[in-house]
Amino acid sequence: MQYTAPLRDIRFAMHELLDSKAHYARLSDHQELDTDTINSYLEAAADFAQSVIAPLNRTGDMEGCRFENGEVYTPTGFKQAYEQYCELGFPAIAADPAFGGMGLPTSIGSAINEIMGTANWSFSMYPGLSHGAIATIEHHGTDEQKATYLENMNTGRWSGTMCLTEAHAGSDLGLIKTRAVPNADGSYAITGQKIFISAGEHDLTENIIHIVLARLPDAPAGTKGISLFIVPKFIVNADGSLGARNGVTCGSIEHKMGIKASATCVMNFDGATGYLIGPKNRGLNCMFTFMNVARIGTAIQGLAAAEFAFQGSLTYAKDRTAMRSLSGAKDADKPADRIIHHPAVRNMLMTQKAFSEGGRALVCYLSQFADVVAQGESGDVSAKDVKYADEMLSLLTPIAKAFLTETGYEAANLGVQVYGGHGFISEWGMEQNVRDTRIACLYEGTTEIQSLDLLARKVLGSQGRLLANFTKIIHKFCVENAENDDVGQMIRTLAKLNKQWGDLTSRIALQGTQNPEAIGAAAVDYLYFSGYVTLGYLWARAAVLAKAKLAQLDDDLSADTSLHSEYGFYDAKVKTAEFYFAKLMPRTAVHVARINSGESSLMAMDIEQFAF
Amino acid sequence: MQYTAPLRDIRFAMHELLDSKAHYARLSDHQELDTDTINSYLEAAADFAQSVIAPLNRTGDMEGCRFENGEVYTPTGFKQAYEQYCELGFPAIAADPAFGGMGLPTSIGSAINEIMGTANWSFSMYPGLSHGAIATIEHHGTDEQKATYLENMNTGRWSGTMCLTEAHAGSDLGLIKTRAVPNADGSYAITGQKIFISAGEHDLTENIIHIVLARLPDAPAGTKGISLFIVPKFIVNADGSLGARNGVTCGSIEHKMGIKASATCVMNFDGATGYLIGPKNRGLNCMFTFMNVARIGTAIQGLAAAEFAFQGSLTYAKDRTAMRSLSGAKDADKPADRIIHHPAVRNMLMTQKAFSEGGRALVCYLSQFADVVAQGESGDVSAKDVKYADEMLSLLTPIAKAFLTETGYEAANLGVQVYGGHGFISEWGMEQNVRDTRIACLYEGTTEIQSLDLLARKVLGSQGRLLANFTKIIHKFCVENAENDDVGQMIRTLAKLNKQWGDLTSRIALQGTQNPEAIGAAAVDYLYFSGYVTLGYLWARAAVLAKAKLAQLDDDLSADTSLHSEYGFYDAKVKTAEFYFAKLMPRTAVHVARINSGESSLMAMDIEQFAF
Repeated sequence: MQYTAPLRDIRFAMHELLDSKAHYARLSDHQELDTDTINSYLEAAADFAQSVIAPLNRTGDMEGCRFENGEVYTPTGFKQAYEQYCELGFPAIAADPAFGGMGLPTSIGSAINEIMGTANWSFSMYPGLSHGAIATIEHHGTDEQKATYLENMNTGRWSGTMCLTEAHAGSDLGLIKTRAVPNADGSYAITGQKIFISAGEHDLTENIIHIVLARLPDAPAGTKGISLFIVPKFIVNADGSLGARNGVTCGSIEHKMGIKASATCVMNFDGATGYLIGPKNRGLNCMFTFMNVARIGTAIQGLAAAEFAFQGSLTYAKDRTAMRSLSGAKDADKPADRIIHHPAVRNMLMTQKAFSEGGRALVCYLSQFADVVAQGESGDVSAKDVKYADEMLSLLTPIAKAFLTETGYEAANLGVQVYGGHGFISEWGMEQNVRDTRIACLYEGTTEIQSLDLLARKVLGSQGRLLANFTKIIHKFCVENAENDDVGQMIRTLAKLNKQWGDLTSRIALQGTQNPEAIGAAAVDYLYFSGYVTLGYLWARAAVLAKAKLAQLDDDLSADTSLHSEYGFYDAKVKTAEFYFAKLMPRTAVHVARINSGESSLMAMDIEQFAF
Repeated sequence: MQYTAPLRDIRFAMHELLDSKAHYARLSDHQELDTDTINSYLEAAADFAQSVIAPLNRTGDMEGCRFENGEVYTPTGFKQAYEQYCELGFPAIAADPAFGGMGLPTSIGSAINEIMGTANWSFSMYPGLSHGAIATIEHHGTDEQKATYLENMNTGRWSGTMCLTEAHAGSDLGLIKTRAVPNADGSYAITGQKIFISAGEHDLTENIIHIVLARLPDAPAGTKGISLFIVPKFIVNADGSLGARNGVTCGSIEHKMGIKASATCVMNFDGATGYLIGPKNRGLNCMFTFMNVARIGTAIQGLAAAEFAFQGSLTYAKDRTAMRSLSGAKDADKPADRIIHHPAVRNMLMTQKAFSEGGRALVCYLSQFADVVAQGESGDVSAKDVKYADEMLSLLTPIAKAFLTETGYEAANLGVQVYGGHGFISEWGMEQNVRDTRIACLYEGTTEIQSLDLLARKVLGSQGRLLANFTKIIHKFCVENAENDDVGQMIRTLAKLNKQWGDLTSRIALQGTQNPEAIGAAAVDYLYFSGYVTLGYLWARAAVLAKAKLAQLDDDLSADTSLHSEYGFYDAKVKTAEFYFAKLMPRTAVHVARINSGESSLMAMDIEQFAF
């Protein structure tokens, strides 16, 4: 499949729907950013993604990574592409200018990540994984640690990893066993095994900086006894040069369903030298500071999967012929009609489009809150604004992560379905997209974990305050547009569901006081409900905006025919929003019914009764 | 994963829920079949499946098929396993006794196919694909053709294929181009290319008998100009020995998402000698005679995927520990609770169980109608009974094919999800199950094609008669159990949905008179609605039966503790039925809402507007 970055729609989401100009004007660090400059970054990313890494997507899948004597070799072409990626300055885009970064905000980084990730998700994971390590060092490192590592990581010369998971401890990090024993020189000897370490070992960079979760000898059990350590593959000498090879080695790489060009490593720490970062026993807390940003990164994978599937499906549906339309021949010059004329195929295309464009808007919306949090109190941004943005980010991150990855996976599967039997064949790229995307619902916290995070920690944990922040925004939008006849039905549906969101929350809270399992039983459905309403809000906003643009264009159209394409774009926005409300929003009803049916049918079965 | 055939539940579906004894007693060909004999066949299949082909499932996926100089080599161990399969007589089970078959009914064949298919779907496709070719020759062949081919095919010495699809013609077979030109000796020279031919070439059998769709020189265009031909890989001499190699060769095999141990071949016919079978230009009609049985075969793949995923998930969920239950520690002796205690995991396990066991009941229900059709008018079975069974088979086949493969795919994906990150890793088998199952929603008619078949051809095409046949059965069941307090809520829900099924049909028929596209727009949702109600009917029946058994056991239990396991089994049936009605049946509401929202939001977009 030939990937083309959807620049028109990215510009719509950033500049029109979410008014990037007004957003950046508030942020003292980014006031100088103008739309043309942003667009030039996007175009540079699109050029590189389309010409350099998109062609490596399928070959990377076929070849995979190779493990040989402890070394990991990325597929043919990855090393050269990575060098070019660094030369063009992409690793540094959102990094701290104090350490060689360009200092652009997260919201621009997200858009570029979408473009890179859609072209080749496996490739984009190598630089992508560094961000967690960089953020950890930025926020919690000593000045010396920052000076030692950040600049080389920001330029992409070195990469980074997050070493969290162990074979018996994934969702529940409280169970990890890796030990850190103090050395005489103030460093620590790290011993243990980590699994599922993306980019744990590879041939793209000179050094790899691992951030490792481990326990000090006197640490309390569980999550409150975990500390963070920097463990470089090569010890960095005082002068910045690379010293001894550290005792951290790759034991093997996993054979897995997809993202085969991304090395997923078993990492063995054998008394490796590590440096404590952040306060002792507070490692998990330190990690929460950047967890939201990492999860936005995974949400982008869902959006990317939907976009990739949509582009592939559209190409095929406009070309492949089969059957005549039930309402009569549409392509009378052909032996059969193109399948894009058939409603079942249109349903699949529209679903992909609605999730892709809606997901893009959500990621952008979320990233703007991340921008405010990263900026902090300054200029027009008050401490209250920062707190509010942080709360919105906290609420929306699990929704975006789980909902966009699940709907992205659905869209990817529709990509296979549109192609019929051909979708199952590797050469079209649709089945690879399914395989590559499946992981997104698992890593960085499964859908089930995100759901508990949303419902138990964020919504109920704040006594509903975090949810109320957002439902107030939606309520205000609905009130403002109550008289807008163009979008009346959408607004009424949205207002009703927005109210239901609060009611549902109260009901679950009540169920939970009677039986705490009711919260776990409701969580996944609650997340889906929240996702549909959240995307619905953004689709309704898009429709309002597009309707206004159409009214404006109506006047200009006859004078300037070059505006026809713009007219078509906004008209398509309205039609996609209408599709979203007609065909996808009704799914909320199932989630409500399932929540209302309570936990009893889930909890009734005795463990020994599941099979005979 | 260690597969164990679910013999207890198969016996429940066949003997208890669907009363195999009474069923076979009606059929003059099968009156002698007793329950013990049937069970011994099932046990023999389970033994073979568990010990011989299950171990080849993962190795077959890893190794795949090999194409070399026109020859196809199946993975290591397949040839020996196939020989054993034939020695044990499995190919002949449901075959005609006049040609070396055992003559067992489809309903027993289906149960055995489930067991074989769950153990190793790719393996089971080699004998499975022969059935279409065998059925074609049985029903439409001349006596000479039957004598030439059937016995060797029934014993598994030769295999068969169905060569339908061409690169540009899949769902729409009217577009095929392969030509058949008469030879002087009464045979035909077949020329063209077929793709996606499962078992088109392989090393398991001495000969391969292809049934090929092709056009005669004077054939009308479209579906009414297609004839069927027998094209053997090796021409069969008059004495039954193998003669010259025919002009049909394998051009390549496909690289695909799953079922990698099943060879999917491009077959080139280069003036190959073919023999007309059935009347000229009536090839598609001839194929319809066995299409239902072939589609039941694919429905079984969905059920098999759900069962496989359930078994794998249950094993893992009973072993893996993570977090404490929200209602307090459940496994206080462990560092965390086993994940089977968590409601989100239970939801996934129960969903798999409900689809697997419900699917098994549906396949058995359907297969009994196929038994009656195959039997024909005889003894207690009147011509009217045969017609009725044929109508039920026609109605239920697209539902079973599409609904069970889609829900099987869902269950397979839940298998990955229960395992968390480990689900994405090949060694556990869960990701392979997803990849292997994905094809089931595509081949033998996609979900979209099945949906049109159900709604347009079967339901609307019969002016609702075929549907009314079934809704009457459900209505009668609901009336009979209206006073049954044990299952009151289920029965009320089922009765309401059963009525809604008719109403929905009328509404779509009306929409269709206004705009024919409304039928295509509604079809997939209509199929899902139909699927949930159909499975709901079988689950409600299972609950009624299980409740009665429990009441019986209540009396006996204190006297005989060996009955505890049986009690647990029936109790689990009731609980799974309750789960189905509480958590899965509400999905019908979405499909109703989507149907009611009509076709406009699907058809509004101009083709050029889909992307900018």
